[in-house]
Amino acid sequence: MAITKAQAAAAERVDGDRLWRRHMDMAVFGATAAGGVNRQALSAEEAAARAALIGWGRARGLKPFADAVGNLFLRLEGLDPTLPPVMTGSHLDSQPTGGKFDGVYGVLAGFEAVEALLDAGLKPARSIEVVAWMNEEGSRFAPGMMGSEVYAGDRDLDEVLAAKDADGVTVAQSMAAMNAALPALDALPLGRPIAAYVEAHIEQGPVLERAGKTIGAVTGLQGKQTFRVTVTGEEAHAGTVPLAARKDALIAATAMVQRLHALCAGVDERVMFTVGRFVVTPSAPSVVAGRVVFSIDLRHPENSVLRSLGDQIEPICAGLVGPCRVAVERLVDVPSIDFDARLRGQIRTAAETLNFPVMEILSAAGHDARQMNPLAPTGMIFVPSRDGVSHNEAEWTEPADLTAGVRVLAAVLADISGAT
Amino acid sequence: MAITKAQAAAAERVDGDRLWRRHMDMAVFGATAAGGVNRQALSAEEAAARAALIGWGRARGLKPFADAVGNLFLRLEGLDPTLPPVMTGSHLDSQPTGGKFDGVYGVLAGFEAVEALLDAGLKPARSIEVVAWMNEEGSRFAPGMMGSEVYAGDRDLDEVLAAKDADGVTVAQSMAAMNAALPALDALPLGRPIAAYVEAHIEQGPVLERAGKTIGAVTGLQGKQTFRVTVTGEEAHAGTVPLAARKDALIAATAMVQRLHALCAGVDERVMFTVGRFVVTPSAPSVVAGRVVFSIDLRHPENSVLRSLGDQIEPICAGLVGPCRVAVERLVDVPSIDFDARLRGQIRTAAETLNFPVMEILSAAGHDARQMNPLAPTGMIFVPSRDGVSHNEAEWTEPADLTAGVRVLAAVLADISGAT
Repeated sequence: MAITKAQAAAAERVDGDRLWRRHMDMAVFGATAAGGVNRQALSAEEAAARAALIGWGRARGLKPFADAVGNLFLRLEGLDPTLPPVMTGSHLDSQPTGGKFDGVYGVLAGFEAVEALLDAGLKPARSIEVVAWMNEEGSRFAPGMMGSEVYAGDRDLDEVLAAKDADGVTVAQSMAAMNAALPALDALPLGRPIAAYVEAHIEQGPVLERAGKTIGAVTGLQGKQTFRVTVTGEEAHAGTVPLAARKDALIAATAMVQRLHALCAGVDERVMFTVGRFVVTPSAPSVVAGRVVFSIDLRHPENSVLRSLGDQIEPICAGLVGPCRVAVERLVDVPSIDFDARLRGQIRTAAETLNFPVMEILSAAGHDARQMNPLAPTGMIFVPSRDGVSHNEAEWTEPADLTAGVRVLAAVLADISGAT
Repeated sequence: MAITKAQAAAAERVDGDRLWRRHMDMAVFGATAAGGVNRQALSAEEAAARAALIGWGRARGLKPFADAVGNLFLRLEGLDPTLPPVMTGSHLDSQPTGGKFDGVYGVLAGFEAVEALLDAGLKPARSIEVVAWMNEEGSRFAPGMMGSEVYAGDRDLDEVLAAKDADGVTVAQSMAAMNAALPALDALPLGRPIAAYVEAHIEQGPVLERAGKTIGAVTGLQGKQTFRVTVTGEEAHAGTVPLAARKDALIAATAMVQRLHALCAGVDERVMFTVGRFVVTPSAPSVVAGRVVFSIDLRHPENSVLRSLGDQIEPICAGLVGPCRVAVERLVDVPSIDFDARLRGQIRTAAETLNFPVMEILSAAGHDARQMNPLAPTGMIFVPSRDGVSHNEAEWTEPADLTAGVRVLAAVLADISGAT
């Protein structure tokens, strides 16, 4: 197999310097002292990043749109605008101590691929839309993937708009503030049909680096369950109430974390168990904790193992609650999924033809592509993460690898958009 | 033994309604929806409480002063102003979810006792100063007792001024903001000699209530050690890094909390072990915790037991650190102390003569009186806490019990100030 002349032309015109410069420009929005970014969903920092992207798009003739849940689209109009568009992108929001590449790479890769098509003088039959999904990370507003879930009809718009951050600010309020900071955009409906979805992303794990591969043709997404556990005890003075008479929410919660971790560590090395958020109230040194709320993020590639472990969480917490009370809510419950085989093959073929070492890889992290998969043929292109580090300010991908990923993406988009 | 006519007259003029009203007036500053107060040290809420107290004092001819560490004094001038004053008071700051009585009772009790002396037409030989110490609670700025410690020379002023809250704001900055919100006050030097110190306080434990006593003549203060434990791991993506390859600060910290709690629970029922503060960074659901900082508050009435347990904390934490790093800092290390026997006897005698059921009691909680004890004869008067509840918005003491405590205080102050 080979690639078409149009695909080769698009891949050829990808400009690695421009791509890198855009990453550095984006990293200014929410830049942290340690070299990362704090650009949480719908923040002023994300608004600034969107404003920059909209400006770059307009300069290349791409028209910006928004939908009701705050997803941003930059559209390159196709020769036949009545055809469902090809969509590519990812997200601009980050973790509180995130890196320069997670999410933003997928958006800028899509944008660079479109620029490469334009620079090659190609005209796609289908429109190509570069999307920045709202709140992929789920750190400010839980859970993540809000924008793509609502787009795909997996979650209710009103529920998402009412979700609150730790300060009690809703998604609706934050979105209104963000929109006020941006130029007015034409609206697009949720759930429009699409022809295909292709997302480029850093791997966020060590597999490609260890295997010496530049491109990962992603086979699918690992299943995941997330939980919010709320342990309620009773505040008391640290100096006067005997331990046996306390309802100490922190003692109960730490026992739960330890037991669950031991359970998961004993299964196999593919179990991912993380308590990343753990918030104590009132969190004062001489007050017994009245309440602890903690998150659980549980992943495993085998759906049977994931379900079995997930189902043990509530009984284990209930068994360790002592004199406190506990509520366990399952927030996310998604199985492992497979991406479209034909699109996966196109990605492999493009990489091979362009002489990039390629391998198939299961995504251990979750991505917006999960929500697009039932709507249209969906694929993902991974590039290596140094030391497998992500969700960390030290996150790094070599510029040449970023460029390689966009070359593959541009070739694939040229083909499925019918560019000539 | 009996009490003098002046003592009886002062006790007689204590106005329980006025005392209660002042508590309700103070509870407005930082009022929470659940009926408690959030009036942390040097906050706008504490500034407002101080402003009210200064106004009430001025209306009764008491002159307000401040010292360099932000302690507030309201002075009733004695017939011989050259004599060291008698001091009474406590603190106006609260825990984040504190009650209406902890600390504020001691300040308002001292103020009411002074009003009672004035209403009885008594003139003290020594000046009486009502003090509100800066940052007793230690919840916003750690450790607590900053104002009384600096006054007594136990802690360095510059160190305290440089201490930062969770937002990076220093004591010096907060104090400047508070002072800007208050009328300009004349300054008093730190460490002035005093003739005696008497502090009224709610018990914050269940002992008086269970024994059916109204007044506690406090024998001394339980010893205490506090620690800050910092566990440093490495942030990582929750979906991609195997458990065995992680440096998860939360897993290490929760193991430490569990082990230390089990150790302390196995000693005797007088061991108080509290992890009240536990802060995770970045505290995002899909990021492995890079850092946890937690507090330990350890108390026991026997100094040998306290020391033995305190000395085990660092080795236990070091043994459970796994691939992370840990730093254990001992912030407070104070032994159990005894108050002045004569002053304790005066409190008992006054209570008995006024027909209030009285008992001797060891304070399980810490108080500013600890710092005054080496400077001058020091005593404390406790009144009951309903269900022993404190550091809680549900904190409650019956108005009649508050009044009883002030009657005893007024009698004692009349005597030791030489009121005639």
